[in-house]
Amino acid sequence: MSTHTTFILVNPQMGENIGFVARAMGNFALCDLRLVAPRDGWPNPAADAASSDALSSGFVNVQVFNTLAEAVADCHIVLATTARERAQAKPVYGAGEAATMCRAHAQSGLRTAIVFGPERAGLSNADVSHAHGVITFPVNPEFSSLNLGQAALLMGYSLYTAGQDEGALLPFVTDLGAPPAKHESIHSFITALTAMLEARNHFTPSHRAHMMQQNLQNLILRMELTEADVQTLFSVVKSLVKPL
Amino acid sequence: MSTHTTFILVNPQMGENIGFVARAMGNFALCDLRLVAPRDGWPNPAADAASSDALSSGFVNVQVFNTLAEAVADCHIVLATTARERAQAKPVYGAGEAATMCRAHAQSGLRTAIVFGPERAGLSNADVSHAHGVITFPVNPEFSSLNLGQAALLMGYSLYTAGQDEGALLPFVTDLGAPPAKHESIHSFITALTAMLEARNHFTPSHRAHMMQQNLQNLILRMELTEADVQTLFSVVKSLVKPL
Repeated sequence: MSTHTTFILVNPQMGENIGFVARAMGNFALCDLRLVAPRDGWPNPAADAASSDALSSGFVNVQVFNTLAEAVADCHIVLATTARERAQAKPVYGAGEAATMCRAHAQSGLRTAIVFGPERAGLSNADVSHAHGVITFPVNPEFSSLNLGQAALLMGYSLYTAGQDEGALLPFVTDLGAPPAKHESIHSFITALTAMLEARNHFTPSHRAHMMQQNLQNLILRMELTEADVQTLFSVVKSLVKPL
Repeated sequence: MSTHTTFILVNPQMGENIGFVARAMGNFALCDLRLVAPRDGWPNPAADAASSDALSSGFVNVQVFNTLAEAVADCHIVLATTARERAQAKPVYGAGEAATMCRAHAQSGLRTAIVFGPERAGLSNADVSHAHGVITFPVNPEFSSLNLGQAALLMGYSLYTAGQDEGALLPFVTDLGAPPAKHESIHSFITALTAMLEARNHFTPSHRAHMMQQNLQNLILRMELTEADVQTLFSVVKSLVKPL
């Protein structure tokens, strides 16, 4: 499932951060990474080392451009990530809303690019002016700083999960191993347990006996026991009544 | 907006990773971090350095425990993060589903803990056996490895955004600066432009003239111009018709 969304890093500084972005793209099935004038050139061994094989495997394909204008030339929709407001009168999207838009564009055969700025300063206003809109992240206003790798991870996650059934995307799902026990098994256990308890005068005072039995039955039914669970509990109870 | 969800790191190794987790907690307004037997002890300067002030500011409060059992003692619901299936017959939740559950529990005054394993091996089966359920992340099965900081970031983001109106959580929203122009301004512009073009025999052949005018009008209306935009375009057109 490729979401056809391109990530573009403008003037990335640390190779390690390029690697973290590539790793996040691998995590969320994105394969088109573009670099605009990376500070340390390309290829970059530090990027490979940090990418957890997303680069070395070729899963994430990297292209290098001299300018942002060249990097976005074949894209239909360009969105710029930014943590602060720019007086550029562009629509502002949250990551989730932007992800939903990108998926819809991809289904129409359009290519969307999401642009990330350099580590320290973020995108310049000139960079942002290439974009149709701006993406920002819902974060605690008291601690709003996200680094490049974190922003790419959250954007990738949003793209991967937007509008999807989360359960269908999980690597594994609940497997309780066995179906619930039939009611007759549970009933046999409750009957036997109740008899053993009655023999030991457990249900006293007598005017509360009925309610005590009912509470115990409700507790046992709430456990959602399997057949094996019922056998386990039955054997525990049989051990408990044995004399030492 | 505190979500009352506790993050617990079992045997964390690198202080830097504890710092990344604390930073992610700050980003998403979580303040209760518990460490079970951190390898390098506590406090840890490497954690402070990586936390982007989330630790030094005191926003994230850290407690250290000897065992996971002690760390979860006051919690009502314990969920263990894991990337691989355990044959423990526990319910499995995606991060989004788990986040929705945690918020609901918090509203009922219950404390939920989310447990993360050490960097290399993840949680042991003994650790997982303390949990009521398991959380896993929707990721590309070809590149499913998330590190500790990434897992905490995605879990924090999920907790912060679950069931919320994303727009209300953004640090800033769309401000187009000025309202759209009144139709009479746009109409004046279109009328003047059309007159200038007619004077230059633009709308030919004559049987297509009406359609060409209509297309131009549609294009201009689609621009959603402000009053200032209309003035800008009007002055551009007036300059264009000037003789050199």
